[in-house]
Amino acid sequence: MQGEIIAIGNELTSGRISNTTSGFAARHLYEAGYEIYAMHTIGDSAALIGEALKRAISRVDFVLVTGGLGSTDDDLTTEAVSKALDRPTIPNLELLSQIRNHLDTISASPINPLEKLAWLPQGAEALTLQSQMSGYLLIHDNKPIFFLPGVPYQMQTLLLEQVIPRLATLNQGRQLATCQRMYKIFGLAEAEINRKIVKLALDHNIHIGYYPVFPEVHLSLTVRTHKGRDPLPLFEAACRIIETNLGRAIYGSDNDSMASVTGQLLHKANLCLATAESCTGGLIAHLLTRVAGSSLYFLGGVVAYANSMKTGYLDVDKELLASHGAVSKEVAEAMAAGIRSRSNADITLAVTGIAGPDGGTTEKPVGTVYISMASKNNIQTHHFHFAGNRHQIQEITAKTALDLVRHYLLQQDGI
Amino acid sequence: MQGEIIAIGNELTSGRISNTTSGFAARHLYEAGYEIYAMHTIGDSAALIGEALKRAISRVDFVLVTGGLGSTDDDLTTEAVSKALDRPTIPNLELLSQIRNHLDTISASPINPLEKLAWLPQGAEALTLQSQMSGYLLIHDNKPIFFLPGVPYQMQTLLLEQVIPRLATLNQGRQLATCQRMYKIFGLAEAEINRKIVKLALDHNIHIGYYPVFPEVHLSLTVRTHKGRDPLPLFEAACRIIETNLGRAIYGSDNDSMASVTGQLLHKANLCLATAESCTGGLIAHLLTRVAGSSLYFLGGVVAYANSMKTGYLDVDKELLASHGAVSKEVAEAMAAGIRSRSNADITLAVTGIAGPDGGTTEKPVGTVYISMASKNNIQTHHFHFAGNRHQIQEITAKTALDLVRHYLLQQDGI
Repeated sequence: MQGEIIAIGNELTSGRISNTTSGFAARHLYEAGYEIYAMHTIGDSAALIGEALKRAISRVDFVLVTGGLGSTDDDLTTEAVSKALDRPTIPNLELLSQIRNHLDTISASPINPLEKLAWLPQGAEALTLQSQMSGYLLIHDNKPIFFLPGVPYQMQTLLLEQVIPRLATLNQGRQLATCQRMYKIFGLAEAEINRKIVKLALDHNIHIGYYPVFPEVHLSLTVRTHKGRDPLPLFEAACRIIETNLGRAIYGSDNDSMASVTGQLLHKANLCLATAESCTGGLIAHLLTRVAGSSLYFLGGVVAYANSMKTGYLDVDKELLASHGAVSKEVAEAMAAGIRSRSNADITLAVTGIAGPDGGTTEKPVGTVYISMASKNNIQTHHFHFAGNRHQIQEITAKTALDLVRHYLLQQDGI
Repeated sequence: MQGEIIAIGNELTSGRISNTTSGFAARHLYEAGYEIYAMHTIGDSAALIGEALKRAISRVDFVLVTGGLGSTDDDLTTEAVSKALDRPTIPNLELLSQIRNHLDTISASPINPLEKLAWLPQGAEALTLQSQMSGYLLIHDNKPIFFLPGVPYQMQTLLLEQVIPRLATLNQGRQLATCQRMYKIFGLAEAEINRKIVKLALDHNIHIGYYPVFPEVHLSLTVRTHKGRDPLPLFEAACRIIETNLGRAIYGSDNDSMASVTGQLLHKANLCLATAESCTGGLIAHLLTRVAGSSLYFLGGVVAYANSMKTGYLDVDKELLASHGAVSKEVAEAMAAGIRSRSNADITLAVTGIAGPDGGTTEKPVGTVYISMASKNNIQTHHFHFAGNRHQIQEITAKTALDLVRHYLLQQDGI
């Protein structure tokens, strides 16, 4: 079963918005056993929309169209579909009544652009009755065409709750059997990883993909077999090879993040963490607290961006700052010790560095970073020279700091 | 001048990586006066690559191909181009020598997959001599075809430094004259904005696009005129209408972010800010410190995720926490006052709330947030019920907090 995804919107072809919905749809459809033949992004032009839709219908088994379903003037999808497939738009009475009920509660205006959302091409079935969210299914030439809104969370909800279940019902038993895992790797370059597992690519049922997601590399392993053959034994053998050859550079898989994995290790060890951040400015704390449940192992921290915060909240000695400079091994250590003594955390992380673009010197260029990690009786400090722009230096510093904690906990655990 | 963008990689069609490079290219090409006819994303298949390339050459003036130029086994672009356009690959000697020099410094291996990068389709001109980065230009049927790497920062560098200048040279004088601005809006829904400026869309030289970027709405205004007519007067008139009708809901434009605009206002008023964050876990500090130069107005803050951090670092009274709960007006105020007294900041922000998915109660459901802003002699607290998932609640809380500071400073300034 092959599908094609068409994303509509001048905001996309003019690059104003990066298209995240097509990638989301592709990932979930792929995992559900469908191949994506191609993904297209086109502007708000009824002629182009019609042309892309007709070409897709002629060559794949299903089509997903996102965007252009809203109530504003630049939303042309339904009009284009109506013209291209020769299906007049007619009002869906159930939708219309929902919209009117909703409008009664928020506005007294007798005519409202939201009513546009109730007019669908003939033969279309609404995928949702929620007002302010649109989406419908049209079966044309025996092929399902799903129309979803371009707003990411609406599109994502309808894809998962409507499109994938309906596709499964429409096409029972035609998918390939697939096993897939995304390994998440930190500290090894793409070419090094490729060299370590090059043999795997020789089996034509195994597909390896390399996805640099700065500062990490994600590696996807996909094993596909035709109906009736179980992909699992081959998949498990491939997993063992990857895990053996890449070792601890693999920090996790699939939905893991560096912060979630480090957090799980802290929780397992019944330890809690606190942070003292200068150049990362709160990014380490933010990465940790994005993870639901992080209060189990993360106390919080101090963003000591100004020197006054380093002395006032972390008890860093003024003379130490003056003699060694804020970006120094000595200050990183004092920050880690300072947050440890006042927060009572079991492990603390402190970072100080120059994220740029200004502030670099010959001796300490942009990218110079010190990271200290303190446990109850020990402090270790690492010195780095990272390359990249300001955001990249902040990002790699934060991930490196979390990775130090991860390695420390794995070692403590005797793994 | 119309162009087409083709992005290559199974990581994209399987949704493993979201395609950010096509959007980046589209935006910069659009701003340079080119129209993007369509953007395509296809897998690592030589046949599909060739087909998409030939179709694009037949209908647009230039083509940009990204991805599949690397040294690993799944990089097939050059091979596909060679086959589709009937141009054998030949080694580019300058590239080859650069790669060998580089390899000598990092490895003793006599044969290296990186040498693959030096083999280009006949007639191709290398766009860079940096080893580990590839990119070339091929002029085929009089149409320029640019091949760039898929790694975002490499692609971005070559696009800005090579593709856009070369296109300008190749196609002098054929572009439309364009004026464009992206307004950034917080606190007004798309439909409300549309209603306030609906008249603008009547002029066919004016194009308005709506781009919800949670929790903001970005609105692009584009005025295009054919060569010889100046778009500026119409553009300026449209800007005045938008700015008058949307008022302070517009926080900035183009490269502004809520944090950069709030920071500029702080700097202009010669005031400094400190933060005390619970449910946002460092996100406000992170947004502020992503902006270069933020040390001019941001001191830092405390991420008081655990209650022990609220008492230990922000002097929040234990009994206050016990009687009102950590998510309360009283605790938000105590946090704002606590960070103010110890940091000596002119303005402080404190947030406490329930980001979810757990922790909600009937009385205080997920999304309940208190934000306090303190100036030297005053504390004001706002109570919100935000909807969304954990990340969305953290995001809208952080932006709302910064927006409170922005509105306060605008008011102080008597604007």
